[in-house]
Formats: sequence, structure tokens, C-alpha cells
Amino acid sequence: MAAISRQRITGFSNPTVKFLRSLRDKKHRRRERRFLAEGLRLLTDARESGILPEMLVMAEGRDPHSLTDALENAVAGAGGTIIETPPDILAKITGKANPQAIAGVFAELDTPLSTLDRTAAPIWLVAQALRDPGNLGTMLRTGDAVGAGGLILIDDCADPFSVEAVRASMGAVFTQRIAQARWEEFLPWLRAGDGQLVAASLRDAVPYRGAPYSRPCFILVGNESRGLPEEYEAACDLRVTMPMRGRADSLNAAVAGAVLAYEVLAAFD
Amino acid sequence: MAAISRQRITGFSNPTVKFLRSLRDKKHRRRERRFLAEGLRLLTDARESGILPEMLVMAEGRDPHSLTDALENAVAGAGGTIIETPPDILAKITGKANPQAIAGVFAELDTPLSTLDRTAAPIWLVAQALRDPGNLGTMLRTGDAVGAGGLILIDDCADPFSVEAVRASMGAVFTQRIAQARWEEFLPWLRAGDGQLVAASLRDAVPYRGAPYSRPCFILVGNESRGLPEEYEAACDLRVTMPMRGRADSLNAAVAGAVLAYEVLAAFD
Repeated sequence: MAAISRQRITGFSNPTVKFLRSLRDKKHRRRERRFLAEGLRLLTDARESGILPEMLVMAEGRDPHSLTDALENAVAGAGGTIIETPPDILAKITGKANPQAIAGVFAELDTPLSTLDRTAAPIWLVAQALRDPGNLGTMLRTGDAVGAGGLILIDDCADPFSVEAVRASMGAVFTQRIAQARWEEFLPWLRAGDGQLVAASLRDAVPYRGAPYSRPCFILVGNESRGLPEEYEAACDLRVTMPMRGRADSLNAAVAGAVLAYEVLAAFD
Repeated sequence: MAAISRQRITGFSNPTVKFLRSLRDKKHRRRERRFLAEGLRLLTDARESGILPEMLVMAEGRDPHSLTDALENAVAGAGGTIIETPPDILAKITGKANPQAIAGVFAELDTPLSTLDRTAAPIWLVAQALRDPGNLGTMLRTGDAVGAGGLILIDDCADPFSVEAVRASMGAVFTQRIAQARWEEFLPWLRAGDGQLVAASLRDAVPYRGAPYSRPCFILVGNESRGLPEEYEAACDLRVTMPMRGRADSLNAAVAGAVLAYEVLAAFD
């Protein structure tokens, strides 16, 4: 099968190009259960986290790089497909005028909630109906930084495997566990074991600084415009407030999650 | 002049429509020194902060709202221009398929560094070469929340008056002072008065938690991919590190600024 595993593609209408382009679209990503990640740094982060793309797409005439060689060898060794294509076709695939010289197709990395080991980390981030893929990616990145176990997506969130989310995660999409669940599944799962559910809230809340956090701590962040539904807040073990000294009554969702996560991290140290 | 101050525009090729559309482009914004903000909430935030648009653009057939009436009256009372236009023309102006029913043109709100009163607030945010307008808007929003005085933009930053930055600021573009300067101007200005310059850094740094912050504290955040130039870090009074427990060695720029700003706020309380 070596003949299939290495291809050169020169035509825009090639079916593989169409397949790759379709991965920019959520509907197609869902159906294929595959996503696209771009750039040598991101793909190297993936490799160093033990995750290889099924397909590696490289621009012809790219600058040589030892990390590119390492990727190519690893993908070939694992039986993956390697594609070389002119830069303008790669630009069409990634939808960027100045694309990175390398991209990879990965199998989606969802973990079923039922198989998540909550004892593996002291902190978990939970996003409820977050609509901005950049916010999801930023939460993954923050999760990596605070040593969180992963990000649990509740209700209808943006796609964590979209190009923007993957890019904003700076590689954390490959290191953080990602689970997706409805609230009606999440809450019973949480209550079946240890776990403190904490939300930033204005209702019946204590100051976030020095609040009685306990492990494993699940930090719940709500939708960008509506915040958390009242019943979700009511189900939390701890509601905390952050100072708001200005006109606004809330922070950006990813920022609120990060300020809270760093506070919890400090409390656990 | 009442005849000029109220117009109905029905044609896409109307010069006012062209002017309004051009404000989505940085070059034109700079030349006109005007920017566009969309949405009743944002425009109401502006009004409540004492800032009115020079021109108010409203979609015909919009739902009536007392806040819209209040805006209209205020703009008319101040001698501004009020424009009514079909929703599809407003969509073309804002570049969104589902535009808000109202938008306003504001004079840019830069404050010259030389007129900034540093004693007016205990915290100031400083962004160096930040390229993402969403990050700038998020920093403005965080600044509002921590009671900062404003955001100082050093070197070539994204435009704080772009539609994305204004939107992400959630109104803070109207409450935070915004100054733009080269590093070569900023540092002498800073050193001519009180002010501690603090950066998140890996070099010669102390833990960010419990570091000796002092007022007014200027929190410096560097470019998204390159971070701060070494000489800028060296010029800081205090370099602090945040825990990085994962693979990554940095946080999103707006997140790093926010975690640090909340720590400084707690230290000053």
C-alpha cells in the first residue's frame, strides 16, 4: 500500500483537495470525525503529545526543516498518507492567503464523559454554550497552563475542532481531554463521584479570592452573552464573585475562566 | 440646519453609505479619525459614559425601544445627524448578514500620552505590538473590570477602534482612556513620574503571586507570538512568572494580562 501513502496533487478539483477543504466546515467535520490543524509548531506539539495526523499535507518548495522531516518520517512510519501540493492549493485548503507550509488531518479527539478519569487532575474547565471558537481554544490553552485535565463542553458550544479553536489552543487541543455532553448527562455524571462545581456568579456568591475550593474542582463558564442559566448556577457547590470596578458586570468568558482557574491553582498549592 | 441633521437613505451608492462602509477599513478610519460602533447596548454604554455618536444610523422597521428613543433624542439635541435606512443597507455598512438595528459614528477617543493623568487609577494596562483586535478589546474590557485607567498601546498594535476591538470591549472603549505611543516615547514619559512597570516574563522573575506591586502599576503585555523584546523586559521594574504546568510556555496575551491585573488588584485591596 506504499503507493497510496504518498501522493502529489496538482489539481484544485482533486477529490482529496475537496475533502480537505470540506473539513473547514463543521457539518463535514462532524460527519468525517476528522479535523485540520495547520503549521509546523502545532503539528510538532501534536507529535510530542503522541498524536500523529492520518494525513500530512505539505507545500512544495517549502523551506527544509528537521521538524518537518521528523513529522514526515513519523507519519510514514505509522502508515499515514503524505501529500505534496503547490502552495496555492494548500492556501485553498486552509482558506488563508498566506498558509503555513504544512497541515495535518487528525481524527477527532473527543473523550466520552463516561470514560473521563476525574482524579487525573485537580482542575477541570467546563464551558456552557460557548459560541466563540477562539474562546474555546483559549480555554484549552489556559487549561494546559494550570495543569487542568481537560475541557468539558456542555450544551451547544462552538466546535473545539474548528480551525480557529485549534489555532487559539496553541497545541492544547492535543494535550487536554475534550468531552461533550448535555447538562442532563453532565450533572449526574459529576454527582456520581467527587467533584466541586464552581461558577462565577452574582447570586448568593462569596469572593473568589480565598473561597473554599476543593479537588477535583470543575470551573463552569457560561455563554458569552447570556451567562449561565439560573438553574445551572443553583446546582453549583460554590458560587464566587470577582471584583467589577467599572461599568461592566462581566468579563470575557475565557478571561473569567482563567482568572478563576489561577485562583484555584494557587489555593491548591 | 435641521434639514441636514435627519436623512433617509435608500440607495447603496449614496455617498454617506460609502463613507460609513469605509470606516470598516483601518486606513479610512485613520484618515477620518472616526469609528463605527454597532448595537443598542454598546451605543447606550457610550451615552451613559457621556459620549454621543456624531451620526446615528437606524434600520427602518426596527422594533421600538425606549433606549433607542433616548439615543435619538440625545444625538438630535447635540446637533448630530440621524439617518434611517433599510436593513439591507445597514447590513452592507456593518458587513454583517444580521446586523444590529442601530450603529453610530464616533470621533476617535485617543488621549495623547502627555495628557494622561496616571494618578487617576491604580492600574494601567500596556499592550506592546498586539496584533489581534479581539485581544485589545478584551484587554479594554478587563481594564474596566479591574478599575484600570486605560490601555496604552506601544509600537504597532491592532486598531483599538476596529469593529472587532470595539465589539470585544463591550463598551469599555468608551470608559477606558486609550493612548498610543512608541516605546521611545513611553519609557521617558513613564520615568518622568511615579509608576511601576511590570511584565510577565521567564527571565529573572519572581512568582506573580504576592509580588511587591506598587501604584500606579503598569502591566505590560507583549506580542501574541514573539512576546516582549528582551530590552523591554529589562526596562521593567518587576518581572513576574505565572505557573505553567503543561506543555505550553505562555498564555493568551489578554488572559495573561487579566490574571496579572486581578492579582495586582488583590494586592492593592
